[in-house]
Amino acid sequence: MDEDTRSGEGSMMNAGWRFAKLVPAVLLAAGLGACAPADPPKERTAESKGEVMKKKSLGAKTLPTAPVWAVGSYDQAGKPNAMTAAWVGICCSKPPCVAVSLRKATYTHGNILARKAFTVSIPSEAFAKQADYFGLVSGRNEDKFAGSGLTPVKSELVDAPYVGEFPLVVECRLLHSFELGLHTMFVGEIVDVKADQSVLNEQGLPDIEKIRPLLFAPETHRYHGVGRFLGEAFSIGKGL
Amino acid sequence: MDEDTRSGEGSMMNAGWRFAKLVPAVLLAAGLGACAPADPPKERTAESKGEVMKKKSLGAKTLPTAPVWAVGSYDQAGKPNAMTAAWVGICCSKPPCVAVSLRKATYTHGNILARKAFTVSIPSEAFAKQADYFGLVSGRNEDKFAGSGLTPVKSELVDAPYVGEFPLVVECRLLHSFELGLHTMFVGEIVDVKADQSVLNEQGLPDIEKIRPLLFAPETHRYHGVGRFLGEAFSIGKGL
Repeated sequence: MDEDTRSGEGSMMNAGWRFAKLVPAVLLAAGLGACAPADPPKERTAESKGEVMKKKSLGAKTLPTAPVWAVGSYDQAGKPNAMTAAWVGICCSKPPCVAVSLRKATYTHGNILARKAFTVSIPSEAFAKQADYFGLVSGRNEDKFAGSGLTPVKSELVDAPYVGEFPLVVECRLLHSFELGLHTMFVGEIVDVKADQSVLNEQGLPDIEKIRPLLFAPETHRYHGVGRFLGEAFSIGKGL
Repeated sequence: MDEDTRSGEGSMMNAGWRFAKLVPAVLLAAGLGACAPADPPKERTAESKGEVMKKKSLGAKTLPTAPVWAVGSYDQAGKPNAMTAAWVGICCSKPPCVAVSLRKATYTHGNILARKAFTVSIPSEAFAKQADYFGLVSGRNEDKFAGSGLTPVKSELVDAPYVGEFPLVVECRLLHSFELGLHTMFVGEIVDVKADQSVLNEQGLPDIEKIRPLLFAPETHRYHGVGRFLGEAFSIGKGL
């Protein structure tokens, strides 16, 4: 099957297109197409819909939420290091890739360029202090694994260590580095994802409710956990 | 001040470096440096620390958590569109930028290339169904604003619409597009962030507890909310 034939537009997932492909037909079969007005409405403007225009301009800044990832690397001497990063995300399904943006001043920046590899270790709530510590000090001056009491585990697939105690880790080989300004974006191809058995669900899939990852609110400098289940993706929107 | 002089390595935030810069001195003043072993421990291996090696290999796949963003664009005819994306993230502080990865097959992909602009609208929990709907159908076939009952608002700063009812929106001009494989990564410079007054805290900053954004678990196809406050960033790690 050619993924480019997909009808639905959601880019949320790798497998989702198989489902999404069926959706327009399902919607039609259910008669939901009738919910749409015969004529598309004209775009409503600020003037015609005052209640949605109470927004306050905050200027050109970054967003209020981000993930918390620990990026693992080796330095020239082979010392393992981990730094906290939040300017990160999944960026491709095939090949599966993550993007991690780092300032050139960071110790990890040079490590990744030299070793052409990095890992991402996802801390659980229980390791919030250690995750914060990884972002407070530099591996240039300190042995952060020693300082945190956590365990660097040498990846057998890429030239980088991961955090043994964190429940989910991703091993990446460097594919691209893009200079964006203050930050360099490193795109890493995911070679393997490894998870503690304790965070897998009955189907063997990583379960967000068991991983309990951290979120970071850049604007208010706060960590939060993951909250309540709100609904099945690629499903709850069919009711509209 | 030169940000490259920063001691701390955390790349989590734009402003954070000012704080992080002080941290090593603070740690020393507090005598916390004494907590580090005199000799850095040797890297522990799988054999010497069995309990951190119970991880199961899941293969090369994507990660278990991602944000839920609605990406707004205009098509050739000027019809506003929004699609849900989760392969996204903040990617630079200066200039402030976001990265949004889309498959070439999506309608939005062509829209962004043609208009050189897009927006990101962050849905709150109350709009989980609409956010899901934006990922179920294609703007090529449907008017998703009409179908969702939500309001496209024309940005005055970039050539793209945002979702009026979503509490936080980001207006971006296209800076880069990178071909990564199945997905193209669009890097957009944030021209402005706009927020409903109701989601700002007393300091006028976007408050994650008021925005109540969605998280998406790609592996299990589930949406979750943001959970409990876990601690102050750039702070709780100092206790180690």
